[in-house]
Amino acid sequence: MLKESESLLLRIFIGESDKYDGKTLYQYLVEFLRKNHFSGVTVLRGITGFGKASKIRSSDLLEISSDLPIIIEIVDSADNIQELKKIFSCTDMLGSALITEEKIKVIRYGTD
Amino acid sequence: MLKESESLLLRIFIGESDKYDGKTLYQYLVEFLRKNHFSGVTVLRGITGFGKASKIRSSDLLEISSDLPIIIEIVDSADNIQELKKIFSCTDMLGSALITEEKIKVIRYGTD
Amino acid sequence: MLKESESLLLRIFIGESDKYDGKTLYQYLVEFLRKNHFSGVTVLRGITGFGKASKIRSSDLLEISSDLPIIIEIVDSADNIQELKKIFSCTDMLGSALITEEKIKVIRYGTD
Repeated sequence: MLKESESLLLRIFIGESDKYDGKTLYQYLVEFLRKNHFSGVTVLRGITGFGKASKIRSSDLLEISSDLPIIIEIVDSADNIQELKKIFSCTDMLGSALITEEKIKVIRYGTD
Repeated sequence: MLKESESLLLRIFIGESDKYDGKTLYQYLVEFLRKNHFSGVTVLRGITGFGKASKIRSSDLLEISSDLPIIIEIVDSADNIQELKKIFSCTDMLGSALITEEKIKVIRYGTD
Repeated sequence: MLKESESLLLRIFIGESDKYDGKTLYQYLVEFLRKNHFSGVTVLRGITGFGKASKIRSSDLLEISSDLPIIIEIVDSADNIQELKKIFSCTDMLGSALITEEKIKVIRYGTD
């Protein structure tokens, strides 16, 4: 049996060396999302890129401390994503991160 | 000349150590998709993440057998993606994988 | 304060060893996008995949010159993405690259 449900994909674009509360920001966020029972979290590391400030982050230079782009992806119900956006709007955790939202369908097979 | 066509992006979220039929699942799926003439297949490996079961997969721990998140992306026509979903619904290949679907436009330039 | 704006995500799928004008194509594109004031650019490297020509690109084989899949993601306003597509249609820079476009929302918090 196939079940489809409308959901949202939230993507948070930060740098690998961004910090919050003395921890690496992306690790802080993953821990935060796990503790608050969000699901479908995947963290991707890019090989280069840049944001509004136009600074190129890259692994091409042999640097000991590189600042590669990080994308944190969260797939969850519209209700849960709205809740998460409310939490983000009451904290300075994300600094000037780029955040995008997309409508997606979640597809499940069988019984779960 | 610019041509645009409505298509679908299917994304399958699994673990790097997931197996099927004695093979690594993501390699099995790539081989399966190639043999069945799907196109636009890209496999991404995340650096950490978790699913419904809330187990954190991470490359931060120095483990010999890590289980990093894998995303298999398939860009194809709506017809081909529907066909693929039918195939998936008749097999236990994907276990409890998270699968998402998004409407996208494919843009092509020139003649091909 | 939360601000949301309709935007577009353009994704360009190429190979890591693709060249243009004597340079690695993905590096050429990132430099081009930065010089032309596009923002929200992230480059991801896949671990395997294939396109229309069905050639599997993979890091599983121990090759000195591998040709892994590269995704260049650009998040920008609809106007800027239309402008970029116009530029792409007047150049052979992208060869037979797969390009996809998705509607997204950009979410910003605070003042910027």
